[in-house]
Amino acid sequence: MTKEINLHLVSDSTGGTLNGVVKACMAQFSDVMPIEHLWNLVREERQIDNLMKTVAEQPGPVLFTLVDDALAHYLQEKCKEAGVPSVAVLQPIMQNLSDYLGIKGKSLPGLQHMLDEEYFARIDAMDYALHHDDGQRTGRSLAEADVILLGVSRTSKTPTCLYLANRGIKAANIPLVPDIPLPQEIFTLKKPLFVGLTESPARLVELRTNRLEHLGETQKTDYLQPEKVKEEVAKARQLYTRMGWPVIDVTRRSVEETAAEILTLLSRKRELEQQKKQDKKQQEETQPLQNLHQ
Amino acid sequence: MTKEINLHLVSDSTGGTLNGVVKACMAQFSDVMPIEHLWNLVREERQIDNLMKTVAEQPGPVLFTLVDDALAHYLQEKCKEAGVPSVAVLQPIMQNLSDYLGIKGKSLPGLQHMLDEEYFARIDAMDYALHHDDGQRTGRSLAEADVILLGVSRTSKTPTCLYLANRGIKAANIPLVPDIPLPQEIFTLKKPLFVGLTESPARLVELRTNRLEHLGETQKTDYLQPEKVKEEVAKARQLYTRMGWPVIDVTRRSVEETAAEILTLLSRKRELEQQKKQDKKQQEETQPLQNLHQ
Repeated sequence: MTKEINLHLVSDSTGGTLNGVVKACMAQFSDVMPIEHLWNLVREERQIDNLMKTVAEQPGPVLFTLVDDALAHYLQEKCKEAGVPSVAVLQPIMQNLSDYLGIKGKSLPGLQHMLDEEYFARIDAMDYALHHDDGQRTGRSLAEADVILLGVSRTSKTPTCLYLANRGIKAANIPLVPDIPLPQEIFTLKKPLFVGLTESPARLVELRTNRLEHLGETQKTDYLQPEKVKEEVAKARQLYTRMGWPVIDVTRRSVEETAAEILTLLSRKRELEQQKKQDKKQQEETQPLQNLHQ
Repeated sequence: MTKEINLHLVSDSTGGTLNGVVKACMAQFSDVMPIEHLWNLVREERQIDNLMKTVAEQPGPVLFTLVDDALAHYLQEKCKEAGVPSVAVLQPIMQNLSDYLGIKGKSLPGLQHMLDEEYFARIDAMDYALHHDDGQRTGRSLAEADVILLGVSRTSKTPTCLYLANRGIKAANIPLVPDIPLPQEIFTLKKPLFVGLTESPARLVELRTNRLEHLGETQKTDYLQPEKVKEEVAKARQLYTRMGWPVIDVTRRSVEETAAEILTLLSRKRELEQQKKQDKKQQEETQPLQNLHQ
């Protein structure tokens, strides 16, 4: 039987971090259904007094991310009084980083949502993903992309790009459509990481059928013919192999997992480029010495 | 001076949770620039051996989310040997929930990214946001929306909707354009939470000017006239007041913060509806008794 529990999530900022943490933890408990109570932008004792009324009525653990120590302490005391457990989600990590760096954190709420460079990069990445979805290239060029995804129809290119954008990565996607040639310019691009998406033909047929039904289309075309779809997928794979692009099979894989693989590939690519740059610099620095010895 | 540190982020899943946690923590340390090394989908000791090579070369704290206790223990031992601190990010929360529930977690990685109902709801929400952006209504109806955002041009309606979609919320947005009437159907909708976005006219003029420059447009129109923009904003505010819709001023506020406020409003709305339902049920249950007493 499913057990319901109240979870009170108290954040001095947007609650995004808490949400991720709670989702990851709750997934590990089967048959437990959390009823989440969100308390975002909590920055005053008055707000804590207020939310504690609901906690008293619907008791359950209080998980919080409050960077102000005094406020965190106040909440913890109130939870003790109410007899509910409270967990300072970021505290162990902050403590550890603080020890390692020999610096104390600033205790100012909402700093990660400052309208800083990183923030605008993220919004920019979203705008980029929207304008470079499904092979459209309006305004800005594909050369700016961090990642270019390719795949036949229904390989989840769009949500993967949006998810990457949310992580600040500029991602464009280009559909592989039978008999429509790819834009030639992409083969000259140096910056982007190209990734080919593939999926089992049977699953594709299923997804495409659902899609068309959803749109109210009933006509059977090559788009749904198992033999044609198999051919489409094989051709896409041949292209990826020919170009030496990494391939991700998205069959029964979530968009987040696909995006995670792409982020790992990107991290490795950047480490490699960094290494190359350092090697080149080192080579240049030792070059004059070598010349001297000749 | 900015201090660079290596941060190794080890996840058995997508690393999304870790990313959020690290961003929230690092924001509290000024003048520290983390060089993030991502290690996603780590599920075997072999992978840990591998990544420890990079940790040895570029030492720094290892933050991890590994739900398998044995694997977590292995990583912690390796970090001890290498002389770098390691932090089990989810451990205190898992422990606390486990104690509270009297159940042990499942220790299976990646459970929150299962292709379950919630996952498809999130993908569906993204699809919904894309198809209900900027007043388009193709295919599905506005009645399905959890949230409908309204606002004049450049009040960050689109990224806010995408951010909400990422949290599984179906969000549509409708632009308020001078002299273009709103679709009348929206005034009959019962389900969605309506939110009016507003912004200082001066900031709007700035954003719109940047936007047009970006698009290569130079023509001056009403769109940029301070007096006209002021009028536009005032009219939008009048509409919100008339309809009794909550208003969020997005001036100098990040999209995440706007989304957080909307999520809080939605949480309150749902709690209220829940309460009403219970009250009604209670009333119905006590009704026969009251009749008896009459």
